[in-house]
Amino acid sequence: MVDVAIIGASGYTGGELIRFLLNHPEVEITDITSRKYDNIPLHKVHPNLRDTGLKFSNKKLNDINADIIFTATPHGASMKIVPELLDTGAKVIDLSGDYRFNDYNIYEKWYGFKHTGKIDAVYGLPEIHRKEIKKAKLVANPGCFTTGSILSAFPLSKAKMLNRCIFDSKSGVSGSGIKPTESSHYPNIGDNINPYKVTSHRHMPEIQQELGLFSDVKVSFTPHLVPVIRGILTTNHSFLKDEYNDIGSEEIRDIYLKQYKDEPFVKIMDEGEMPRLSSVRGSNYIHIGCFEIDETGRLVIVSAIDNLVKGASGQAIHNMNLLCGFDETEGLEAYGMHP
Amino acid sequence: MVDVAIIGASGYTGGELIRFLLNHPEVEITDITSRKYDNIPLHKVHPNLRDTGLKFSNKKLNDINADIIFTATPHGASMKIVPELLDTGAKVIDLSGDYRFNDYNIYEKWYGFKHTGKIDAVYGLPEIHRKEIKKAKLVANPGCFTTGSILSAFPLSKAKMLNRCIFDSKSGVSGSGIKPTESSHYPNIGDNINPYKVTSHRHMPEIQQELGLFSDVKVSFTPHLVPVIRGILTTNHSFLKDEYNDIGSEEIRDIYLKQYKDEPFVKIMDEGEMPRLSSVRGSNYIHIGCFEIDETGRLVIVSAIDNLVKGASGQAIHNMNLLCGFDETEGLEAYGMHP
Amino acid sequence: MVDVAIIGASGYTGGELIRFLLNHPEVEITDITSRKYDNIPLHKVHPNLRDTGLKFSNKKLNDINADIIFTATPHGASMKIVPELLDTGAKVIDLSGDYRFNDYNIYEKWYGFKHTGKIDAVYGLPEIHRKEIKKAKLVANPGCFTTGSILSAFPLSKAKMLNRCIFDSKSGVSGSGIKPTESSHYPNIGDNINPYKVTSHRHMPEIQQELGLFSDVKVSFTPHLVPVIRGILTTNHSFLKDEYNDIGSEEIRDIYLKQYKDEPFVKIMDEGEMPRLSSVRGSNYIHIGCFEIDETGRLVIVSAIDNLVKGASGQAIHNMNLLCGFDETEGLEAYGMHP
Amino acid sequence: MVDVAIIGASGYTGGELIRFLLNHPEVEITDITSRKYDNIPLHKVHPNLRDTGLKFSNKKLNDINADIIFTATPHGASMKIVPELLDTGAKVIDLSGDYRFNDYNIYEKWYGFKHTGKIDAVYGLPEIHRKEIKKAKLVANPGCFTTGSILSAFPLSKAKMLNRCIFDSKSGVSGSGIKPTESSHYPNIGDNINPYKVTSHRHMPEIQQELGLFSDVKVSFTPHLVPVIRGILTTNHSFLKDEYNDIGSEEIRDIYLKQYKDEPFVKIMDEGEMPRLSSVRGSNYIHIGCFEIDETGRLVIVSAIDNLVKGASGQAIHNMNLLCGFDETEGLEAYGMHP
Repeated sequence: MVDVAIIGASGYTGGELIRFLLNHPEVEITDITSRKYDNIPLHKVHPNLRDTGLKFSNKKLNDINADIIFTATPHGASMKIVPELLDTGAKVIDLSGDYRFNDYNIYEKWYGFKHTGKIDAVYGLPEIHRKEIKKAKLVANPGCFTTGSILSAFPLSKAKMLNRCIFDSKSGVSGSGIKPTESSHYPNIGDNINPYKVTSHRHMPEIQQELGLFSDVKVSFTPHLVPVIRGILTTNHSFLKDEYNDIGSEEIRDIYLKQYKDEPFVKIMDEGEMPRLSSVRGSNYIHIGCFEIDETGRLVIVSAIDNLVKGASGQAIHNMNLLCGFDETEGLEAYGMHP
Repeated sequence: MVDVAIIGASGYTGGELIRFLLNHPEVEITDITSRKYDNIPLHKVHPNLRDTGLKFSNKKLNDINADIIFTATPHGASMKIVPELLDTGAKVIDLSGDYRFNDYNIYEKWYGFKHTGKIDAVYGLPEIHRKEIKKAKLVANPGCFTTGSILSAFPLSKAKMLNRCIFDSKSGVSGSGIKPTESSHYPNIGDNINPYKVTSHRHMPEIQQELGLFSDVKVSFTPHLVPVIRGILTTNHSFLKDEYNDIGSEEIRDIYLKQYKDEPFVKIMDEGEMPRLSSVRGSNYIHIGCFEIDETGRLVIVSAIDNLVKGASGQAIHNMNLLCGFDETEGLEAYGMHP
Repeated sequence: MVDVAIIGASGYTGGELIRFLLNHPEVEITDITSRKYDNIPLHKVHPNLRDTGLKFSNKKLNDINADIIFTATPHGASMKIVPELLDTGAKVIDLSGDYRFNDYNIYEKWYGFKHTGKIDAVYGLPEIHRKEIKKAKLVANPGCFTTGSILSAFPLSKAKMLNRCIFDSKSGVSGSGIKPTESSHYPNIGDNINPYKVTSHRHMPEIQQELGLFSDVKVSFTPHLVPVIRGILTTNHSFLKDEYNDIGSEEIRDIYLKQYKDEPFVKIMDEGEMPRLSSVRGSNYIHIGCFEIDETGRLVIVSAIDNLVKGASGQAIHNMNLLCGFDETEGLEAYGMHP
Repeated sequence: MVDVAIIGASGYTGGELIRFLLNHPEVEITDITSRKYDNIPLHKVHPNLRDTGLKFSNKKLNDINADIIFTATPHGASMKIVPELLDTGAKVIDLSGDYRFNDYNIYEKWYGFKHTGKIDAVYGLPEIHRKEIKKAKLVANPGCFTTGSILSAFPLSKAKMLNRCIFDSKSGVSGSGIKPTESSHYPNIGDNINPYKVTSHRHMPEIQQELGLFSDVKVSFTPHLVPVIRGILTTNHSFLKDEYNDIGSEEIRDIYLKQYKDEPFVKIMDEGEMPRLSSVRGSNYIHIGCFEIDETGRLVIVSAIDNLVKGASGQAIHNMNLLCGFDETEGLEAYGMHP
């Protein structure tokens, strides 16, 4: 039995961590912290999680006694607590952007913060970094958009076939968090499609970093808020290097099938099938499909994830399973909820 | 040409007033005020209303020189400005709750304010108070829920046939206003139904007042927020007095047809038709239908309105047309937008 | 290990049965049948359920060799196969309306069919009929609306306190099934609220039967389609017998807490909390709350369920657990998916 | 007064034509035809259009006596009636795809029909073909996706600056028509994003034809169904020719401002503003904005239209106004309906 704590448990990713961990046979939740909801029962914030006996606390960091600590804290806040948490001897899985960049200059440029808690971390995308994750002390859990984008392009970058990718992503509103804002206001979102940070979203350099590990790919990224609660569908408009002008749809699919054949959470669609948000809703799966090529040489690959699960908390638990040597799918067996 | 000003024009009802008035052939908009957006062009707040030449101003009340003034100000704010606005010689149509009650004690009980600007006003529901409205100086524009509820029951109350009504209303989120809150947060509203103020909503005593003008009716009211931008559908579960035990559906419909036969904005559904929000979306119409009676004697009447139009700004313009002696439908000819 | 078959597995309730059963530790799915999709892999119809190895078949009834058979067949179709299935020695849980009525005349009146396969069945609402279900051969799984309505009123009917209930239910569109129709057409449903069968829905006599087991209650029922995929929220407007005029909200809540204290899937809301669809989405829980009483003596109780789970397939598995002597919550541990 | 007939008036574009024409001061609707709804009053199909006195008829083509005839008939059906309608002396505006292609071979390739009614037509996009439209006998009204795509790229193609455009379009479900199908089924669409015909949509060659009038542009097009009733938002990912590597966002916007400065229905967003569906909902406006360029040289332009208005019926009426010499905005003055 492994003791687990969640710092900043009152947001949506905190709620999802708890939802999965409560049914995980190998862990016990010892602490869920929140400054705002100190001493308040869990279900007052996450109304789906009733009769768990859990309460939020405002414990001091060094009073937390856990084997694994999830930090579901805002960007800029994690860096201030992760070093101290690591000092307790725990392994830490950070869900913020603070430890995702190999080059801290990129972080500081895109996040606008000075980074004050630099520590070596492993980028927690198991499909690329499984080996390093198993041995890590600090895992930087990937962003939601980045997970869907990277995995839609990784096999082709690894094969050094890619020239350029344009990721046109459509995200559910839960990605903006639990706090009401203009961009979560129902009359602004319902029956609407809202592009935002069209050329300036922080997930762009993160995608660039990971695809750039294998080959030089030009990365463009544009997110849209859509009238959906959960889920990110990414339409990846890709261009291959000139030497692959004659490649066909089936050969592309084969590359994906091969790359992901042992991955428990990656599913490659059959020909004629399309990923859809409902197929992965609530689950840790990513569906990847389409692989069509048009007359101009544009290759289209589509991926679908639940932004709060494979895009955040589910992937964090996958990382925990790797850190602890559990079966990778432990606690994450739920199928998507269609319809 | 009549000069019109709108106080508090940056909210949804302000935006809708302007949308209709811009195409009204008999009026000119002279002022739209907003403290927050002083000197900002209209379309920065209402992005649908471009190239109108209008800007928000923060004019002093006595600098406003208009024939008709709409006060689209919050409850409790209207009472502080309406007396002064009337002193300019203008007629005022107030969209807040401040002047809707014949008995100010009821206002003070349900709104929790001391009323500091008491003045005689006419309740601006043309289907009941047309004559008085035409001669009024101050019109209190009805609430959104109340319009849909009262008109669904008025013919039966007038006929002294009603014993009890239970209004189960389903409202779009625009009714909560332009400011983001917990109850307009997309993840709370999407795919959800949220009952609220189940037995304590302020529109209950307003319904009671108007139905009570004709006979003694027990009024219950429960609103729900539904994943809809605009519109209120009210399911009116009614019970008639015992002597009407044998009445049939068609006789009920006939009473409605007769009562509303000259009303330009009330449409009674044919047998087998049901009011729906899309039929009235964006328009000043109210659709009323159903009239079914079940084995237990419950009579069901359903009404549908656009909460921002017939439930607010459209009705306010209808009132203006009455005040100014214009054709009642002037500027309000738009049909509902289905689908 | 118990062998399980599902007849008519290509609809939504079939999909949900499989989703839960695949992760149920005590059962093995031996057959999923569909005439239309004979020999087609499961995920072609239920795209969330991939790599299960399951295929639809069009097996003859007497070739089905299972301990438990779920019939997820249409009303009128179940009666034609259930007798034969029982003859195989299996226990049957029927999800249609065919076996829900103690009095077959009521069935024939409301469903418009002659019943040609009459057999003794137990009404499968564990909170009322747990004991009988355990010993049953044939369980008639309740309707979706009926589950949410009955459980919102059962404690008061049992206490013989109720005079009348008006159930105003708001249902997600998945309740209409997997086949596209006018009433599942997005432009008809989105941004709309559609009342239907306002006084003539078949679930009314079912509610009447169950509440009538304990006392004489007048039952009215009106369903509405709302722009939601899953979930039924029921606003139960109740009137108590005259002798309970002075009862308070807390006493009512206490009656519910007592009645349901050992029920694994019924959760009674705290004061100030309201059931919401997202709290139970994808789970077998029913949330019941509100208990407010207005000035006219109307008591409001609100319940929320997932129509496909507690309202259909989850409850069917709960019944299977009872039939098989498993832990009642086996396979049904999933929490609701909020947001 | 101009007499107007609508052939095939029972679909969504038929309904929208009637909605606008009823309030158009210069026209009278003489016939609305429908085989299916012969002799049925208008509001039985379009429930928003009540008390108009209009009924569907199944008149023979040569009994139709109108100055302007709109054919809102399916692809492949228009070609069978347009020649005969022109013979009556009327001018025809066809809303199908049958007359949109200068080269009938392209039509036959993409639509899979043999064209049996070839006649010279003008492509009815006023912003490009205003002069020819005014003199036309037959106007081919553009497709919905094509309108939003072409107008987002036309100024740059005209300036011969474009190398490639990737149009990633997000469309409301009303674009699929009034008939229920798998792809309008609420549980498939709600909370989902559905890419379709990712590299094979018929609107691609139409975009290609129009942009190709001015310069050689590589065109890629991918549509998505989104949980929205009305509206198409197009994210146009563009690449300029190499010589424009140093161009800035403002210069691009200036090109659009100049091109469209006299266009009554094209609005160019200010810097920092983004087109949104609600801004144009129900109106004939197109909003175009964004103009951001990312590090890789990708230029992003975003357009928003109402697919049923600027994307179909509104544009058809604009074409009628041009044909008849009316003011271009006559009958189309409605602002978008935000929220």
